[in-house]
Amino acid sequence: MPMTTTAAQRFQALLSRGARMGPRAMPRSGPTIYKFGAGNPDPGSFPYQELVQAMADVMELDGAHALSYGSAHGYDGLRDLVVEKYRLLEGLQTSRDNILIANGSNQAIALVVGAFVDEGDPVICEAPTYMASIQTLRRHGADLIGIEVDGEGMRTDLVAERLGELKRSGRQCKLIYTIAQFQNPAGPTLSERRRRELVELAREHNVMILEDDAYGELRYEGQAPPSIFSLDPDGLVCRTGTLSKILGPGVRIGWVVAPPALVPYLSAFNFGGGVAPLTSRVCTFYLRAHLQPHVAELVDIYRAKRDAMLDELERGLADTDASWSRPEGGFFIWLKLPSRTDLQRLSQLAAAAGVGYNPGPIFMANGGGEEYIRLAYSFEAPAEIREGTRLLCRAIKGARTTA
Amino acid sequence: MPMTTTAAQRFQALLSRGARMGPRAMPRSGPTIYKFGAGNPDPGSFPYQELVQAMADVMELDGAHALSYGSAHGYDGLRDLVVEKYRLLEGLQTSRDNILIANGSNQAIALVVGAFVDEGDPVICEAPTYMASIQTLRRHGADLIGIEVDGEGMRTDLVAERLGELKRSGRQCKLIYTIAQFQNPAGPTLSERRRRELVELAREHNVMILEDDAYGELRYEGQAPPSIFSLDPDGLVCRTGTLSKILGPGVRIGWVVAPPALVPYLSAFNFGGGVAPLTSRVCTFYLRAHLQPHVAELVDIYRAKRDAMLDELERGLADTDASWSRPEGGFFIWLKLPSRTDLQRLSQLAAAAGVGYNPGPIFMANGGGEEYIRLAYSFEAPAEIREGTRLLCRAIKGARTTA
Repeated sequence: MPMTTTAAQRFQALLSRGARMGPRAMPRSGPTIYKFGAGNPDPGSFPYQELVQAMADVMELDGAHALSYGSAHGYDGLRDLVVEKYRLLEGLQTSRDNILIANGSNQAIALVVGAFVDEGDPVICEAPTYMASIQTLRRHGADLIGIEVDGEGMRTDLVAERLGELKRSGRQCKLIYTIAQFQNPAGPTLSERRRRELVELAREHNVMILEDDAYGELRYEGQAPPSIFSLDPDGLVCRTGTLSKILGPGVRIGWVVAPPALVPYLSAFNFGGGVAPLTSRVCTFYLRAHLQPHVAELVDIYRAKRDAMLDELERGLADTDASWSRPEGGFFIWLKLPSRTDLQRLSQLAAAAGVGYNPGPIFMANGGGEEYIRLAYSFEAPAEIREGTRLLCRAIKGARTTA
Repeated sequence: MPMTTTAAQRFQALLSRGARMGPRAMPRSGPTIYKFGAGNPDPGSFPYQELVQAMADVMELDGAHALSYGSAHGYDGLRDLVVEKYRLLEGLQTSRDNILIANGSNQAIALVVGAFVDEGDPVICEAPTYMASIQTLRRHGADLIGIEVDGEGMRTDLVAERLGELKRSGRQCKLIYTIAQFQNPAGPTLSERRRRELVELAREHNVMILEDDAYGELRYEGQAPPSIFSLDPDGLVCRTGTLSKILGPGVRIGWVVAPPALVPYLSAFNFGGGVAPLTSRVCTFYLRAHLQPHVAELVDIYRAKRDAMLDELERGLADTDASWSRPEGGFFIWLKLPSRTDLQRLSQLAAAAGVGYNPGPIFMANGGGEEYIRLAYSFEAPAEIREGTRLLCRAIKGARTTA
């Protein structure tokens, strides 16, 4: 390709509104030894050989379908498995017609956003919230309104206020995006009282709710409140889920649970060829026999990791005014740094110690968050979690300004 | 889910502009015996056991990466394999940085469309053209301008006229979408002369070209002209390709070949988690050893199928004024029905005989096409192709009006 730099930039003038936002922002991290940044599952937990066996079974029993175009709504066997999962783990009654398979949870979220959000539409989300969803919503033109999160989850009193303001100014909020279980990154689980309030608000203001539930199966203690989806009598809630945390992100399988009439509208934004006919079957064949024991095993693995990190934070930072979440499940701890922490200095010291983390501001739709960092305890083994957390605590203390 | 029909429709008022187009239109077909409708590859050609072996190798050698999140641009091993494919089959020089992996060719096309097309933007395409791309373009808001196709492919003289008209009316055409090899559905391959004219027009009017090349490897005779991508000195061409036709659609692997500076803009529209880390590796491990012999085998298989259908059309319709394409590759024949064919009657007779096909109008962005049907010879075995084509010819003759 003979091409000059100038020539290569000719496309710039032609980019769409969404593309003019630029390439996707990625949290930068240098080479780290202790990877507490991204929410990566533990590769030690992946069922490698069992998936090879599942692949062999799929090829023998259903190979032609696995390698051909699939249905726009995904492989029915997997849709049925998702239905069964909700029945087993939550007693939630859904049917195949509620389930749309997607290429992972992020794409599931993007399908819902694509179906509802036009340029400039107000969308309510938590502040902080999952950084990839901020980008997905923005790329679709959403005007994001971040709502404070406290120990009971998103503050529904503030949601009511914002919806009232929007109504008075003649603007239609399209979507309330919430991570109700082990809120990512802040940690709390939205209380049942607030879930009911949220459904009531959606009903009153005619707004869709998008309930992002990527970690719900991985609860280490306590009892889950009913899902927002299960509380909605009006077909105004879509819920997303994924195999990324309970099997492996590399299979790229997620789904939307939605009112059946909405499913074909969502799938229209998944352009062509059906969704993952091969990996859908491989995962389904494996999970049919192993779902509950595998999830039970993962709960033990990740609970021990969470406890290791909480323990070391307690040892390392108890004598400071730092505070942090104690999530009942999921992969993350949200740490409020001690007052008078020099953020630049912390970043240098942590990098020097080889400790990676995600800085708070990337989780904030409307700015702020500098005094927070998110720590993922999911990827490293417990010994490395302890060692890395000790080093991080030392870096945090070393970054305190004397002023 | 207690939900009334009325309640289930509450979401309707909230849908985005793209969603208000409604669910994806699918070509309807009843149960058919002879499946000449969709462009489905021959399941007899899928390397089932070899893919199980590839899966085992992937799990052993690279399992942790295969089951984890992937890079936003796709698995580098597959990007390199695509580079090598172009070098081997076309002598085309690209690099890994030109390649963005996608979930199939349709998604690859959608990424390019998403990066360039805003509501109301003019987009030039062929008339007829691939129906799924019409829908993808429309869903993104494109104002489609269909250009006539003759034996040499898209008429570049008409493209020049339309671009001139748009310029005079102050409108910026964003994209020229073309299927340059074995145009789907009409059949011709765009001549080198016209390819050069198209590149010149893109340069003059500052328009991107999207070269959709889903079938290029499956050439049964003749010599391919240089790809449009290879003729472009300005970074104004994106080309899409796929493993759907040379391995199997169920793996959902396609790609964009693009100017390196554009790749991050395109990947931003692929929401999250990287692209198919598992299937990318399984396909790569298989194709590294088998690409050329497997493609050679497919060329023989599909050439024989094409010839069987052409032969039966000749036998069955030579005494009518019907005409049809004789494509040098790909999966399809575009048949102009005899004059005075009663389309309704043909549809009934073909359905009664169990013969499926795609009606012409679904390939037309601006209407028309009633006198055409598209026949796919890819899926059925040669004996069934002969039998089904004989039955179709009989149906066509039976649908002639006496007037």
